[in-house]
Amino acid sequence: MLALGALGHPNENPSVMHSTKQRLIDAGLRMLLEQGYNSLGIQALLEATDTPKGSFYHHFGDKEDFALQVIDAYMVGVHAGLDACLLDGALAPLARIRRFFEMTQESYRQEGYLGCLMGGLGQELSGVSEVFRRKIDWCLSSISERMAKCLAQAQRNGEIPATSNVQEMADLLVDCWEGAALRSRLRRNPTSLNAMLDFYINSVAAGAQTAAGEQPRTLS
Amino acid sequence: MLALGALGHPNENPSVMHSTKQRLIDAGLRMLLEQGYNSLGIQALLEATDTPKGSFYHHFGDKEDFALQVIDAYMVGVHAGLDACLLDGALAPLARIRRFFEMTQESYRQEGYLGCLMGGLGQELSGVSEVFRRKIDWCLSSISERMAKCLAQAQRNGEIPATSNVQEMADLLVDCWEGAALRSRLRRNPTSLNAMLDFYINSVAAGAQTAAGEQPRTLS
Repeated sequence: MLALGALGHPNENPSVMHSTKQRLIDAGLRMLLEQGYNSLGIQALLEATDTPKGSFYHHFGDKEDFALQVIDAYMVGVHAGLDACLLDGALAPLARIRRFFEMTQESYRQEGYLGCLMGGLGQELSGVSEVFRRKIDWCLSSISERMAKCLAQAQRNGEIPATSNVQEMADLLVDCWEGAALRSRLRRNPTSLNAMLDFYINSVAAGAQTAAGEQPRTLS
Repeated sequence: MLALGALGHPNENPSVMHSTKQRLIDAGLRMLLEQGYNSLGIQALLEATDTPKGSFYHHFGDKEDFALQVIDAYMVGVHAGLDACLLDGALAPLARIRRFFEMTQESYRQEGYLGCLMGGLGQELSGVSEVFRRKIDWCLSSISERMAKCLAQAQRNGEIPATSNVQEMADLLVDCWEGAALRSRLRRNPTSLNAMLDFYINSVAAGAQTAAGEQPRTLS
């Protein structure tokens, strides 16, 4: 979801991760995002990071283990971004959600619009690997669970209807974002991301306004 | 978008396609949908279809050419499904759009929820192949162009606001569906597809109702 630019050091405590391991994960993240899993060659990774093969196998059991650890590192960055945005009491809940996706979009821009690692690996691998299918579903669910909590706050604030099922609304938000991220990867531009976010926020806000008897903005 | 179950014979005139070529494309479609491009072995395809290697290279230049022809065949099926639904004057325009996605969802169900070939190959290959990136972007655009024409009819019928940009609304619809298709592939169930379609149709319809001063359904 959130991508490289916003990650910084993706492990929770950068000082404790071995610098070689960190370098491999950083480079692997970029390579997986660009090329996907099957096209990623361990030899190319070793050459790109000037790392001996033995060092790689000291830190990672195999390529699958490596990719799973890259996903974990990526998700640490995503969760940090979610916390920074969704727990920001200075903004209304819907504005916090918008802020998170704007930050995500900015990191996509910095990378040249390669989309979301979860969407990429999820599509590539979930037909052939139960390990990746379950892992990536869990990752997306962990994002939507946090979104749901923020949407529940939006509900208490009257920003969205009291009757909305916030977990379903959060799943929908994450799903639609992933589709927009695919299109941004195909087109190498942010048009789909902006359109999806505007539509979603306006639609849920209009639902609350009309539920309260006010005149909503029309959708466009 | 539309998948195997709804395809039947994917070439425009089945009688003229060589039966070996047809058999390779049918099997390749299933294998690409399940495994993706890089995991697909030509040898495995030949064994699955009991085809000699020479026959494959008689019909296809290489693996890339094969996959591109599978995509073409898939898109013939998608366009046939679009025409069958979107040109059906017995239904209101928004109901035609819903019908198309319900048919698509039914074909996903028959396959065991493997999602959309365009989403799968688009994510896997668009970072490493300009050929596939452009091809798949074109495929999605060809779907949204037809959706836009149907949305324009919905606009004339007063089902969606007169101020909506129907091409943008159509792009958004296709993008969000692709995201929901990814989640259906990860979870092997249709929940995300139903939720996305309900949200989209209700949101655009609510926009028209409130623009006309009526009481919309609230979003949930």
